[in-house]
Parts: sequence; C-alpha cells; structure tokens
Amino acid sequence: MKYKAIQLIKRPQAEITPDIFKMVTLETPELKKGQILLRQTHMSLDPAMRGWMSEDTKSYIPPVSLGEIMRSSGVAEVVESRHGDFPVGTHVIGMMGWTEYAISSGEGLQALPAGIPAEAVLAVLALPGVTAYQGLMNIGKPKAGETILISGAAGSVGSIVGQIAKAEGLHVVGTAGTGEKCRWLEHELHFDKAINYHTPNLNQEIADATPNGIDLYYENTGGPVQHAAFARMNTFGRIVVCGMISDYNTSTPEPGPNWIPIIKKRLKIQGFAMPDHWGDISELSQKVAVYLLKGQIKYRVHILDGLESAIEGINLLFTGGNKGKLMVKL
Amino acid sequence: MKYKAIQLIKRPQAEITPDIFKMVTLETPELKKGQILLRQTHMSLDPAMRGWMSEDTKSYIPPVSLGEIMRSSGVAEVVESRHGDFPVGTHVIGMMGWTEYAISSGEGLQALPAGIPAEAVLAVLALPGVTAYQGLMNIGKPKAGETILISGAAGSVGSIVGQIAKAEGLHVVGTAGTGEKCRWLEHELHFDKAINYHTPNLNQEIADATPNGIDLYYENTGGPVQHAAFARMNTFGRIVVCGMISDYNTSTPEPGPNWIPIIKKRLKIQGFAMPDHWGDISELSQKVAVYLLKGQIKYRVHILDGLESAIEGINLLFTGGNKGKLMVKL
Repeated sequence: MKYKAIQLIKRPQAEITPDIFKMVTLETPELKKGQILLRQTHMSLDPAMRGWMSEDTKSYIPPVSLGEIMRSSGVAEVVESRHGDFPVGTHVIGMMGWTEYAISSGEGLQALPAGIPAEAVLAVLALPGVTAYQGLMNIGKPKAGETILISGAAGSVGSIVGQIAKAEGLHVVGTAGTGEKCRWLEHELHFDKAINYHTPNLNQEIADATPNGIDLYYENTGGPVQHAAFARMNTFGRIVVCGMISDYNTSTPEPGPNWIPIIKKRLKIQGFAMPDHWGDISELSQKVAVYLLKGQIKYRVHILDGLESAIEGINLLFTGGNKGKLMVKL
Repeated sequence: MKYKAIQLIKRPQAEITPDIFKMVTLETPELKKGQILLRQTHMSLDPAMRGWMSEDTKSYIPPVSLGEIMRSSGVAEVVESRHGDFPVGTHVIGMMGWTEYAISSGEGLQALPAGIPAEAVLAVLALPGVTAYQGLMNIGKPKAGETILISGAAGSVGSIVGQIAKAEGLHVVGTAGTGEKCRWLEHELHFDKAINYHTPNLNQEIADATPNGIDLYYENTGGPVQHAAFARMNTFGRIVVCGMISDYNTSTPEPGPNWIPIIKKRLKIQGFAMPDHWGDISELSQKVAVYLLKGQIKYRVHILDGLESAIEGINLLFTGGNKGKLMVKL
C-alpha cells in the first residue's frame, strides 16, 4: 500500500520555509513478527519542532536528520498487527512523524482508552497537558493562594497551566497576543485576568493584575512579558522556563534581565524539556486526565486538513495565528 | 566605660562614601541579669553589607536603620557576664556591628572552641565558609569529576568554594582580577586553572580551561564572566547565584543572557542568601571545620587597624583591592 510522508531535507534559517521539506510516496513493507502497521489519524504540531529541525547539538534531543521523516507525535489506529499487545483496532499515541502510515515495534506507543476523542488526546492528555503539569506541579510547586503569571497563556500549554493552577487555588493571570484570546481566557477558562501583551502599559497592567506580586512565572514566550514578570517576582519566587517562542525564530535573541534580583529575592529559575520525562508520561497523563474528567480543563483545537497542510501550517505557531491546539487531520 | 561605635546616618548613592557614617562615643550600661558585655576583637567586612545599607525593601534582610550602629559579624571576648552560658573569657562569634563593645543577651551568639585564631574564624568558619558550603554543596550539588567555574574566585567566599570543590574531586577553574590573585589560586590553593578576567580573550581562555564544559557555575560577580560561563554550561548545569559584586555599586546593571539555553540545556539557576539559613549556621560551620582541620582550606586575611578604618576600608571589597578576607582588628 502506498502512502505519503514528509521528509526534512534542509535546516531552517530563521523562519520555517516550504523548501526545507519534501513530500515522498512510500510503500508499506510486509510486517515482521512483533510489528504493527499504524494509520495516523491526527498529527500534532508543536513549538518544540522548531528545535528538532535545527542542527544545534546543544538542543535537548538530537535534531531530525536530513532526509528523515519530520518528527511529531500523533494518534493512530492499528490496522495490521503481528504484536500481541496491539491488536487491530487499538488506538495509540506516539511519535509517528509527518506520515500517513507508520511501522512500529510498539516501543514508545501508548494505547488509548476508548471514548476519548483524538482531539482531546492531542490537545490535553498528550504533550501540552503533560508539559503543563510537569512544569507547573513538579517544577513550580505551587501553593494555594499564590499568584501565577503565565506568558503565552492562550497557547496549548499555557491554557492548561492556567486551568490546573486555577483548580489548585492560585490567582491566575495570563498574557496573550489578541483581545479575542484574552476574552477566551477570562470568560471560558476563568483566568482572574488576561492581558494583551501589545498594550503600551504592560508593566502597569501586570502590576495591577498581581497586587500581591508574582510567586510563580510560567515562561512560554520570552520578550517583554519576561522583563515585566521578572520585576514583579516575590521573595522565593520560582520561574519555570518552558518556552521562548518569541525568540526561537530570530538569530539575535534579546538579552535577559540582570541577575541581582535572583539573589535579593532568592529566585529559582529552571528550564525543562519533556524528553527528559518520557518515562513518566503515562503517570503524568493520568494526572492530567483527572482534571479533564472533572471538567476543569477546556480546550480549543485548530485543525488543518491533510498531511501537506503541515508544511505551511506549522508557522501559525510562531505568528500566533492558531486558534487552539494546532493539529493536522489525516 | 566609654567606647566607640559607628552609626549609619545616610543611605549610599552608588558608592560608599565616608559621609554616610558617624563615629559616636557611648558608655556601657550596668549589666542586667542574663546579659553579657562583649569586647570585640575582630570585625568582619563583607560584600553583603552594601545591601544592608540600602533602603531597598526587596533585599533579603531589613536594611540597617538610619542612626543604628552599622551591622557586621565579628569575634568578641566576654569581659563581664551575668549569663550562665557565657562566662567571662568565653570567645564568641555573632552580629555585633561596628563597635568596640556590645551588650548581648547571648541570642545569636556562638561560643568558639579555644585554639582557633579569630582570623581563621572570620575568614573560614564564619560567613565566607558557611556561604561557600551552602551554595556549593546544598544548592549546587556537585559530583566528583564535574567541572566548576567560580567567578570572584580569590574572594573570601570564592576561594573556599574552590577548595571545597577540589576536595570533593571536581575540576576547578576560577576567575579573578589580577595576575597575583590567579597565581595564588593556582599555586597555593591548587585550582586547576585561574583566569584573569581582564584578558582580551576571556571566552577562549574559559573554553580552553573547561574542555568538558561547565557543570556548575558559582556566581560571585556578574559582568563578562557571567556571559562567558553561561555560554559554556552543560546540559543539566546548575548556576548558584551568590553575589553580583560588579553590579552592586552601579545604578544601571548590565542585562543578563537570553533564556533560550535555560530550556535547551535544562539549566537551574538559583539565588540564595545566608540569613535564610541562620538556623543551620552551626551545622554548616562544623562541616566547613572538617575541611579546615584536614588542611584542605587555606586562607589569606587583609587586616585593617582600628574601628575607624572600616569607613574607608570597606570599599576595598568593591575595587578588588583587598588581599584576602577583609577584617578590622580592634
């Protein structure tokens, strides 16, 4: 059976351009014992992919090799099986890449319970949810009554961070790039306050929204929000550095704040990346599912149609053009 | 009995100038029950004092009030006693301030074992040693074989950090401001390498001295070493922020590095201040004493003579002019 896949054939310069990808047609081989054939139904597009495309060997997982199928996670159905744990009809989540079909030994795949839509899996239970939980709960260690500021709060991770923080009793403030996103955060997700970071009075608006200062800053963006948040940190404040999306596509990233407040306020700043925690994904995912099943996590999805749409569509993540968790329906 | 003391009467602007202090003559009162009279013999001068002079309420302990005797730690002898735990002749360490005599209830004082010279107490067992130990061992959590870079390595804290790190089996590199200090670090303290940060090739010299990258950066200074060190950090590197002495006396501190490497390398950056750990001082001091008694910690002292010498002498800490742990002999 023939299927389409997309290879990475060049490293991006600053922006992601269509010429760095190549669409290829492949043929499914005969399955060996222990193998399964997966038909991917939903493919996730995430900001971390920008790092996977670059040759920077200091990144947290090896880059995608040139000529290799572009890396991504997705939801798939087992359509042929020679593996006892994955009978035909099983739905799984895993790193299948930009492809319609994939052969797997089952390694790194997780079977999904029936009845949870693939969209909810990718938007909440998969990378966004476990990233949100790991950063907020295991690194940030929030306490009820504390104030959290989240940059990129309308993003797939930020929106879940805010809702878990709300469920845990924090005062939750977020920043986002449009008035529409801010209204969604306040009215649908019940953030205490959402601020459009394009305001000319960013520092003042953040100060007004955090009358007791900031105990926890969840960093998804970098940029001006970082400096305003840093200046509002309380003593023993924690900063969880999850993303710097406003700086990923530039060759001249902005400087960070001076470190004197790190001493004066005894701040802890910690970066993390989910590949370090893949062994805990299943446990983390179950913890996120608890909030989801209680109705404490709402989500929006932005669905692109067909494998090829990923090539241009991934840039929506960097322009802020996506209106929810970005994914491709195959 | 009459004695001299020095009050803080103004906040410093950028630099510490003599007009912010006032020498006063006081008289010792009659001791009440539970009180002791202390004659201070050695008074410590430390960089943290710059923060104690400022009104910045975000600093880690309250500033010295105007009109109050300037705060400092020191070694003293009990010369009169109405307190059973502190008989006449006991040597103690504690926060006595810029004064020749002090009345105390004993609170916050620690008795010193006989036979350890006051100079060693202030240079190693007191603030420098416990600060070095807390930052290096409890926050930095070093492992044998790792590489540590220490800025301000010839300073009272940095020189002990390097020697404890060496005793713990690390590859130890330090930066300092003069060739003489670098030679002392390499030849007397057995640092693997010491680099004069005034070199025009700072980045290259740091790279050459840390062929396996930097696992642990112990920050005492800020400035150019910070940027060079940050760029050399390894994955899962830790940065202990103990001091930013090159920025304390300026009103326009330099920006820090961009935060993208915090994610890519999953760095942890943490500030600390000893007043948070005063409950552990005795235990920390005992841990430092072990290295001292094994001959693993050498120290130099720079002794000023007489109470009044503190007024000008404290600036040696900020110009780098001191040739060892700075203290005043009374």
